[in-house]
Amino acid sequence: MAFNFELKHTDKNCRARVGKLTTSHGVVETPVFMPLGTKGAVKTLTPEELKEIGAEIILGNTYHLYLRPGVEVIEEAGGLHRFMHWEGPILTDSGGFQIFSLSETLRVTDQGVEFKSIVDGSLHFLSPESAAKIQEGLGGDIIMVLDECTPHPASRDYVNEAVLRTLDWARRCKKSHKKRRQALFGIVQGGVYPELRRLSAEGTVEMGFPGYAIGGFSVGEPHDLMFEILGPTLEILPLDKPRYLMGVGNSSSLLRAIELGVDMFDCALPTRMARNGGVLTSQGRLNIRNARHVKDFSPLDSNCNCYVCQNYSRAYLRHLHTTGEILAHRLLTWHNLAFIFGLVKRAREAILDDSFKEFRRSLELEFVLE
Amino acid sequence: MAFNFELKHTDKNCRARVGKLTTSHGVVETPVFMPLGTKGAVKTLTPEELKEIGAEIILGNTYHLYLRPGVEVIEEAGGLHRFMHWEGPILTDSGGFQIFSLSETLRVTDQGVEFKSIVDGSLHFLSPESAAKIQEGLGGDIIMVLDECTPHPASRDYVNEAVLRTLDWARRCKKSHKKRRQALFGIVQGGVYPELRRLSAEGTVEMGFPGYAIGGFSVGEPHDLMFEILGPTLEILPLDKPRYLMGVGNSSSLLRAIELGVDMFDCALPTRMARNGGVLTSQGRLNIRNARHVKDFSPLDSNCNCYVCQNYSRAYLRHLHTTGEILAHRLLTWHNLAFIFGLVKRAREAILDDSFKEFRRSLELEFVLE
Repeated sequence: MAFNFELKHTDKNCRARVGKLTTSHGVVETPVFMPLGTKGAVKTLTPEELKEIGAEIILGNTYHLYLRPGVEVIEEAGGLHRFMHWEGPILTDSGGFQIFSLSETLRVTDQGVEFKSIVDGSLHFLSPESAAKIQEGLGGDIIMVLDECTPHPASRDYVNEAVLRTLDWARRCKKSHKKRRQALFGIVQGGVYPELRRLSAEGTVEMGFPGYAIGGFSVGEPHDLMFEILGPTLEILPLDKPRYLMGVGNSSSLLRAIELGVDMFDCALPTRMARNGGVLTSQGRLNIRNARHVKDFSPLDSNCNCYVCQNYSRAYLRHLHTTGEILAHRLLTWHNLAFIFGLVKRAREAILDDSFKEFRRSLELEFVLE
Repeated sequence: MAFNFELKHTDKNCRARVGKLTTSHGVVETPVFMPLGTKGAVKTLTPEELKEIGAEIILGNTYHLYLRPGVEVIEEAGGLHRFMHWEGPILTDSGGFQIFSLSETLRVTDQGVEFKSIVDGSLHFLSPESAAKIQEGLGGDIIMVLDECTPHPASRDYVNEAVLRTLDWARRCKKSHKKRRQALFGIVQGGVYPELRRLSAEGTVEMGFPGYAIGGFSVGEPHDLMFEILGPTLEILPLDKPRYLMGVGNSSSLLRAIELGVDMFDCALPTRMARNGGVLTSQGRLNIRNARHVKDFSPLDSNCNCYVCQNYSRAYLRHLHTTGEILAHRLLTWHNLAFIFGLVKRAREAILDDSFKEFRRSLELEFVLE
């Protein structure tokens, strides 16, 4: 089935919206949080568990999958869905972000990016065209243009150059993208410079994409600065297309961004935190390794009814985590994702009820949002 | 409910038997393989998964649980079952084996064993009485006497001394054991010395236990030597009580021991192997890291219908394992346990059919048993 986005309802009192993404692997209600299936697995979890926890769409990282096992293996397996046994929608990124954040000795030219593999140090080259081709091979339902993601801080000149290059790459990605079943999203860059964000947004919208991502945030800039720039940027994007804020997913930012009209999110935070013992709860974050949990037989979050909170105590989870049991990582990941999915689900309900602003305010009073 | 063992059927052509263990946490069909829930979790798996895979009873290691989180925490949690959310039967060992195999600078006297914690090097002392008391605190359905497990090779004099001490400790464990819901099993030691095995078995049987373990095998002695000694030892044990061969669980030994009349097994092999990429299959062992699996889209074992074999390819599992994904450990552990449980289930069916010997022979022809 062809890709489609239907805007179902916009909150009467703010820009928060509820929508429906239709992909050839199923339907996704927005706003949506997409967990990272970095190397072909959402860390520690099976696809069946992801469904049970509430995942509707997951993200695959082109950079990692390109290096290992390689696109050829995934293509021969019948695509990423079959390879990893996930039947729902998948979004793949272009690989650009990881190249810029993980790889060293990279050389960026108008042609593309040269980078060293973090696996074995071998040299690779990614162009806008090959980024599209690789993602066609992976077979995701939503794929992304190659972009140049600038760090923070970065000079205006450097960001300006990156914005222009990203626009050029977007044009070339779009031109070379053949697989019509896949929706290719454009990406807005521009760092913390409002006029560069505007330039990037306008140029990208002009090309016409079925969806728009906003990249280059959550790279070290202050949160408030992000929101100052995010609002006006979103206003440039067409209302009838989905907006995806890349790499942002802590509860507080997620809710603020939803209020501004963002539809899609991804973030390593809930899954990565879990493996370090970090737990998202309605009373704020806690670390399960803390000695105060030694004899705490209460659940992680007494407001949560996920599998983990119904069956395991903090004392047990602390024990598992301090003794290095893999089950600890599974159970904390499960809970953290359940927490985020639950939050986003309540956000959708509040929007449909035209009460998103009150909802967010009430959470800020009731909950301890990070 | 009180502990009970019912011998349901003995194969007409060998000593293999099918029985039923009744415990206060449920019923177990024997022969049975007990996976290790070493530190309060069968590595990587949830209790729900264990049930689905076919586990009927699991083992908890007193040594590890005593050190972390400590008996007090588990008692306050309401016992090991509640602490770890496993509602089925649990057997706990005495801690002796780990003291002798993991701890350094131990001092063994008639009083008990002094040992250094592998966690923090602190000094601890375990007596037959405290071993019983700790296991009462953990709350397993079957608990074990403290024994002195001798290595291989060990001199006759040393093994003789260990046998006499183990008999004395068994007597003291039995005397101090108060919790009648728990069945306390005796342990036969004696290394590779037939006459010491006889001495140990006769002395232990004389005391009268609801079940008997055979310890001190699988510590380095040749397999054939173990079976030479195992047969006559089993003949000394009463037919109406369960026999538990400690620490043995590779497919081939398991089947040979079943033929001699063993009812219970435990072994780290299937779960530990899994984490190293080792896979049990009907065609023999394989290592998933092997490069020949890169594009092998067949299941781990085409004769297996477990969840893993139905949904994942060798290529995918190899990818997960080589990239260090925790999901690899889960899925390989799942399959290996499913393989062992399936084997034991088929063994039970063959015994009921009086065809266990043919069954074992056919497997040795068809399968590649390790």
